[in-house]
Order: sequence, then structure tokens, then C-alpha cells
Amino acid sequence: MAPTFESQQMAPLDLHAGRENPARNSNDGHKSRVTVVGSGNWGSVAAKLIAFNTLNLPSFHDEVRMWVFQEILPSGEKLTDVINRTNENVKYLPGIKLGKNVVADADLENAVKDANMLVFVTPHQFMEGICKRLVGKIKEGAEAISLIKGMEVKMEGPCMISSLISSQLKINCCVLMGANIANEIAVEKLSEATVGYRENRETAEKWVQLFSTPYFMVSAIQDVEGVELCGTLKNVVAIAAGLVDGLEMGNNTKAAIMRIGLREMKAFSKLLFPSVKDSTFFESCGVADLITTCLGGRNRKVADAFARNGGQRSFDDLEAEMLQGQKLQGVSTAREVYGVLRHRGWLELFPLFSTVHEISTGRLPPSAIVKYSEQKPIFSR
Amino acid sequence: MAPTFESQQMAPLDLHAGRENPARNSNDGHKSRVTVVGSGNWGSVAAKLIAFNTLNLPSFHDEVRMWVFQEILPSGEKLTDVINRTNENVKYLPGIKLGKNVVADADLENAVKDANMLVFVTPHQFMEGICKRLVGKIKEGAEAISLIKGMEVKMEGPCMISSLISSQLKINCCVLMGANIANEIAVEKLSEATVGYRENRETAEKWVQLFSTPYFMVSAIQDVEGVELCGTLKNVVAIAAGLVDGLEMGNNTKAAIMRIGLREMKAFSKLLFPSVKDSTFFESCGVADLITTCLGGRNRKVADAFARNGGQRSFDDLEAEMLQGQKLQGVSTAREVYGVLRHRGWLELFPLFSTVHEISTGRLPPSAIVKYSEQKPIFSR
Repeated sequence: MAPTFESQQMAPLDLHAGRENPARNSNDGHKSRVTVVGSGNWGSVAAKLIAFNTLNLPSFHDEVRMWVFQEILPSGEKLTDVINRTNENVKYLPGIKLGKNVVADADLENAVKDANMLVFVTPHQFMEGICKRLVGKIKEGAEAISLIKGMEVKMEGPCMISSLISSQLKINCCVLMGANIANEIAVEKLSEATVGYRENRETAEKWVQLFSTPYFMVSAIQDVEGVELCGTLKNVVAIAAGLVDGLEMGNNTKAAIMRIGLREMKAFSKLLFPSVKDSTFFESCGVADLITTCLGGRNRKVADAFARNGGQRSFDDLEAEMLQGQKLQGVSTAREVYGVLRHRGWLELFPLFSTVHEISTGRLPPSAIVKYSEQKPIFSR
Repeated sequence: MAPTFESQQMAPLDLHAGRENPARNSNDGHKSRVTVVGSGNWGSVAAKLIAFNTLNLPSFHDEVRMWVFQEILPSGEKLTDVINRTNENVKYLPGIKLGKNVVADADLENAVKDANMLVFVTPHQFMEGICKRLVGKIKEGAEAISLIKGMEVKMEGPCMISSLISSQLKINCCVLMGANIANEIAVEKLSEATVGYRENRETAEKWVQLFSTPYFMVSAIQDVEGVELCGTLKNVVAIAAGLVDGLEMGNNTKAAIMRIGLREMKAFSKLLFPSVKDSTFFESCGVADLITTCLGGRNRKVADAFARNGGQRSFDDLEAEMLQGQKLQGVSTAREVYGVLRHRGWLELFPLFSTVHEISTGRLPPSAIVKYSEQKPIFSR
């Protein structure tokens, strides 16, 4: 039999890099230092995965810096102080030990200044501001990776987070996407993810090492745009799947809608970036993330409720009621995608994407999600 | 907007081909006659789809013959008589009108003798016997299509139903597979299917015409083996997905297992038939059928129960209790696939397929389904 997933023995804790003097050992100059920019639910899980590996891999400093947007907790304590005392993000990932080598830091510039490897995992609307603050503050030769799903698709094309990071900070930026419900990974349930890289395969391999654990299987492919677009566009398909659920159309129809959605994701990505590969959509970032998102996930859930209400209550309304301040990305992405499709004359080529937008704006009823024909030729060529 | 799926107006009933004298009109010689061999749940739905189209398309005779394995109903009536009187298959698809132009016929040879187009849709274990009875009884130049999922994978390779039909009856045979829960299609919920053809695209186009309705979207691809293997192998993945459900591992893990399963389906098919295309797995027969089968379906259901019982009750036992005489195909397919893998030295390449078999035979516990590592290189090449 193949090797098993049994939890690996944790290496004995040995913080070469103490919190006070991170570059104590003479060897340490060759080791990579990692900083996680962001400390929400997914950011905290990412810090946990990374902290496990930096302790075990000789090429990394043990310490993982985590930039925390400072908050004062109801107890009056600072969030960073509590994280550093308890090794838990009590606000965004309670009950999970991040590892003693995770150091929360509320000072963004201080958190990044020594890092060779920067992991960006904030809400996407904060990234423009964060990049502006970091211009000129990044270590030379640093590498970045973005875990941020939901970049904006603008009329002239998508404004990708990895491109924003690369162009603003003048550094190379990979992406990591996949079927990644943070709370399931936090309790070490088997999951997968995909790293998308542009050219440098060695760097990608290093990111794979940094994130992989026995329960989190990461592979890398040379297709940044494909991987990143999957992470955004799947939310539009999840809206469609939720509508089908709310209409109680059954599993055949849901599977058909998910498949058509996957095909539109692929076609749209390839039209925008001819370098995008078909095989990307077979990876965790493609079909697996789509499945997770269409089975659970907030876009599916709110769209289900939208259909059950016959479209009489708006998405904004339902979002406010159902998501406790979290935001739906599918509806806004559908609007942005619709803008691109109309601008380029592609509306008829993407009946699912355009119908989702027309339903969400009330121009079509929820039942329209199963009322279009495929626009592709019957024969694949 | 694109055209809608609203039910098309049914053409007025005009049975050119009466039941007594099927070749009454002089034009009729150029028209194709269709016979459906099989009348179970899926066979009856297929007859309904076809009967709708033969009434509306000028290139087909209106009448659709349906071979029925004769049964005497509790009322004392013959099943064929009731079908022909009520236009319903009261035993296998109650409540659904098949169309007045469907004629049930218990005489296999009589049912096929005038047909130019033969649709095979019986349980797969009957096909060898049926082919033997039909040798020399088929009209010259007839074309066949198989809707039969679950052909046998033998040590020397898979014994495909389409090949069996082709070689025994000396006719060309396409296949039709997809996310096709019969009862959902029967009530006209949106579904898709894929026709796989070998060389003759015109014939494939004719099959697409014959099956397509506003709620049943069919497309054709040149890949008989790929389409047919999808229909069988997905049942093995559904066992894996059911185990994950029974272990309550969550949606990330389920999505990961489905994706790894899809990858093994693709790799196994391509190793056996180098002509198999990657793109086939994006079609309804691939990813969509896999999704439907892993969301609902009897393989998933019984595997879920198997895991909840900690593997203490056998699949045979649970099948007998839960399926009322229906048979699980995933377990036997996993056994046959395992035989091929062992024979060819490929076990390590297919950890999911082989683990499903080892769990179903009790050699490994159900939890082993998430305890293997990917055997592929980290970098796609």
C-alpha cells in the first residue's frame, strides 16, 4: 500500500530564532523568513500550516510573523497580545493552536521587513491600501504568494490580486487556491490546494513545501491566471447552483449547471488569457473548489434562499440577514463579468454567467437559470 | 437572451406508421425506424425522449418499438398489454406517459427486425445473451447505441458493451452516457448527456437529434471508450465519496476525493485506450455524471452506511437490506479494476481505486479512504 496520512510526529520545538533576536544563529542568514499578511479565518489556518513546516524544514526560520489588524477584545486586551500569549486567534479561529512559533505583530512594516517570503491573505478590498503602504518596504528578492480569492473583473479585463502585488511591490507573486474551507483544514481534515506559478518552478516548489502537510496536499502548476480566475469565477457558478437548489430541481440539473459553469469558467479564462491551460480546471483550484463551493458555501446558501423567495427579496437584503457581515462575492463578480461580456460582445457565449447576473438584478426570475440553451456547437472539434 | 427551455408545442399526433401496417406510406422507406431494446426505468425514459422526437422529425418513422421482457402483473395482465393500452410503463416508470407512438413488443426478434436504429438499454448482465439471440436477425446497415453503464473490466482489459454489440452483431455502436437520473428526466428537469462515437459523425448527429429535447441537452464527442469508461468508473468514486460522507469528513475532503477519483478515471482510461481524450472528462458523461452519482445514487448511499457501521456489516448485507433487489455496481467494478491494476503493476498509481477495493473487502477500515498520498509528481509536466 501507499504511505498513509497518519499525522507525522511533530519535531521537538526548538526555536532557533527567538522572538527577541530572530537572527541569532550564524547559519540563519541562509534560511527563509516567512510573514503572513492577514489573520482572519483562512489567514490563521495558513499560519498554522506554515508554522508546522518551518519547525520541521531546515531551510526556513522557525518563526512565522503574522500581521494582525489590531483589535481590542471585549476583555480590554489587544488581539495580538492574546494570540502571542495563547497561540490562538481567539477571534477568528478559536480553539485551534497556531503553533508557538507564530508571532502576531500589529505593525505592518515591522512584520514584513525581514521576510523573504510573504503570504497575502486579507480581504481583497484591503489589498490596494496594503500594497501602497508596503512600497519600498519589502526586502530585496522577496517572493510573494496570494491566497486571496475574489479579485475584481473590470471592463478592460480582470484586475488580478497577484498582478497588483507584483506591479506595486516589484516582486514575483504566485497564488494558492483550492477546495479550502478554512475550518475543515484547521481540524486537519484531508484537503488539497493548487499553487499557480509564472516561471520560477523552484520558488513554486518552495511554496509547496511550506504549505504541504499530511492532511493538506499541495501541487503546483504553471498557470497563475488560470488558478486565480478559478478562485473568483466559481462564486458565480455557486450562485447558479444555489438557485437550482432553491428551485428543488434535483441532482441531474445541479450537476449539469455545475458542468456548464465549469465550462464557462474555462472558456472565459482562456479568452482573457490565452496562456490558461485546460488541465488547470482538473486541479483542486478548478473542479474541487467548484464542488465544495456548490455543496456548501455562502454564495450557494443565499442564492438558495433567493430562489425560495421567488426573487422577491434582494440579494443585499438576504446577505445582510444571513451572513452576519460577511460579503457575497458571487453577485458582484457576476456583475463585473457581465460588464466584460457585454463590452466584448460575448454575452451569448456565456449564457450561465449572464443569466446569473440578470437574475440577481431582478431582470429575470430565478427559474431562468435552467432556461437557456447551450451556445456551443453540438460537436466538439 | 438565448432561447428558452419552455416545453415545445407537441406536434399534432399523426401516426403515419400505424401499428398494423408500419410501412403504409410510400415515403416511409427513407425514414429511420427506431427500436429500444429494454424497458426498465431508464429504457422507458429513453423511449419517451425518442418518441417525442420521432413525431417531430421528418427523417424518422413515428413509431418507436420497445422490447419488453414480458411480465404478468398482479392484475393478471401482461405488461406489454398495459403499456400499449395506457402508454405508461406502470411497473418501471409509473405516472409518466411515454407517447402514443411507443409500441411495447415482447418478441425480441420481431421488435428489432425492421429497425435501422437500435437503442440498447438493458441491465448489462443480459447483453451477452441478447446479442447471441440477435445474431443474423438485425437489418443490414443498422446502427446501434448503448445506454448501458457498468460493463465489465476483465484482467485483459475492459469488456465494453459497445464492443460486444459491435463484434457480435457486426454493426457500428455509439454510446450515450451522462448525469442521467431517469426519474428526473422523466419529469422533464433539465439534464445533459454525451454521445460517444467512433468515426461516423453523421450517425452521431442523428443520435443527438433523436435524443435531444428542450430539457435534455445532448452533445457528441469522438471518444467511445472514454465516454463508456466514465459511466462505469464513476461508481467506484461514488463508493469513495459515500465513505467520506459516512465518516462525516466534510465538503473539502469530499471534493478532494471526487477530484482524485476523476483524475484516476482519466488516467486509467488513457492507459487502457490511448485514444481517450482529456476533454471527455469535462463533458456530461465525465464531471457531471460523477457529481450526480456522488451527491445521490445507490453506490454513495450504501458506502455511507458501510462507513457508519465501521465496516462491520458487509456491502452484500447492506445492499440486500437497502436496495430492494437493485445491485451495487461500484463494489464489483472496484474489484475488477483492482484485478487489472494488480495484473499490470499499476496499483501504486491508483491509490483511490485500490483503496476502495481494499476497504470493500474488509482488508482496510473505511477511514483508509483518506489515508494515502497522491502518487503523482508534485509538478504537472
